[in-house]
Amino acid sequence: MRFSPLVDELIQNLRCLPGVGPKSAQRMAFSLLESDRKAGIKLADALARAMADVGHCQSCRTFTEEALCPICASAKRGKADTICVVETPADVLAIEAGGHFQGRYFVLQGHLSPLDGIGPEELGLALLEQHLGRDEISELILATNPTVEGDATAHYIADIARRHGVNVSRIAHGVPVGGELEYVDSTTLALSFTGRQPL
Amino acid sequence: MRFSPLVDELIQNLRCLPGVGPKSAQRMAFSLLESDRKAGIKLADALARAMADVGHCQSCRTFTEEALCPICASAKRGKADTICVVETPADVLAIEAGGHFQGRYFVLQGHLSPLDGIGPEELGLALLEQHLGRDEISELILATNPTVEGDATAHYIADIARRHGVNVSRIAHGVPVGGELEYVDSTTLALSFTGRQPL
Ligand SMILES: [Zn+2]
Ligand SMILES: [Zn+2]
Repeated sequence: MRFSPLVDELIQNLRCLPGVGPKSAQRMAFSLLESDRKAGIKLADALARAMADVGHCQSCRTFTEEALCPICASAKRGKADTICVVETPADVLAIEAGGHFQGRYFVLQGHLSPLDGIGPEELGLALLEQHLGRDEISELILATNPTVEGDATAHYIADIARRHGVNVSRIAHGVPVGGELEYVDSTTLALSFTGRQPL
Repeated sequence: MRFSPLVDELIQNLRCLPGVGPKSAQRMAFSLLESDRKAGIKLADALARAMADVGHCQSCRTFTEEALCPICASAKRGKADTICVVETPADVLAIEAGGHFQGRYFVLQGHLSPLDGIGPEELGLALLEQHLGRDEISELILATNPTVEGDATAHYIADIARRHGVNVSRIAHGVPVGGELEYVDSTTLALSFTGRQPL
């Protein structure tokens, strides 16, 4: 016996959120019950609508409840001749926060992972190939993560791009600006040497 | 322009949860959208029902969607002659986790704080006085927090108990078992001296 069934159920269900353990779930439930019922009702409503209505952009596969996401729907960027390939919608947000990239995106929603049954089909690569074949694409920028799976995915997509005669590049990996060399991990450091540029 | 309105709205609303900043709200929204829609729907449902239906136990004021919480409704504990007064429902859970207290609770849902407009009425002290006057209460144990407000609240309630001729005690504050003396804060250490017991 802990609390009443409904309170227990709320605490239990809050644990589906990433990073939320039993203690924080309890704290969240009590905080909403105590002082934030209106916010709780709004959250329940936004959650229900998002789970029901949010799908994938028909052009770039990011999350959207419309046919096209705001970027693909924009007159300027929707037909851009540069496509940046990322693993997740969060990566789009990170790049957009910089504000320097003005092309469009293609969101894989994952990376190649044969053991988990994630192949080219699950990543929507047929749709990407359609863009490469039909649209006027001058460059495909690969911004998958610098992991074994991200690397494999980048190479696989680079092959597709070459078959379509589209220039393909990969974003640089190396020592972050403001990062101190001695605290950077050895893999990143190795990449910073491989990717060195003539001065 | 960030994401589509519905995704933005979900991220924004997740921030009403305590301890959830913009980054974690985003991570939560994406995690639910990506791989956990069923869990998201269940959470939305539990949340909506809890916000609408959970009220306060008519006897102890903890959260419940019933007239009485499970403890107050139980034949054994609901009529116990010992009442432990705590500030929040989370405190009830912490004490119940120990399993040593077999009496019933009274949950203030806060502490006296005149500047925030929280007086005896807001803490349900009239209801507590009803219990002291009508029920056979042998002891009132005060387990409010060892803070200025918690202390003031404890003293205020102790006066009420004495007026009703009910024994009143306060839980001990001191060095936690397993805690190392040198890492205990000075207030706790001072309390552990004040509350010392003859051997
Ligand atoms: Zn799009
Ligand atoms: Zn109760």
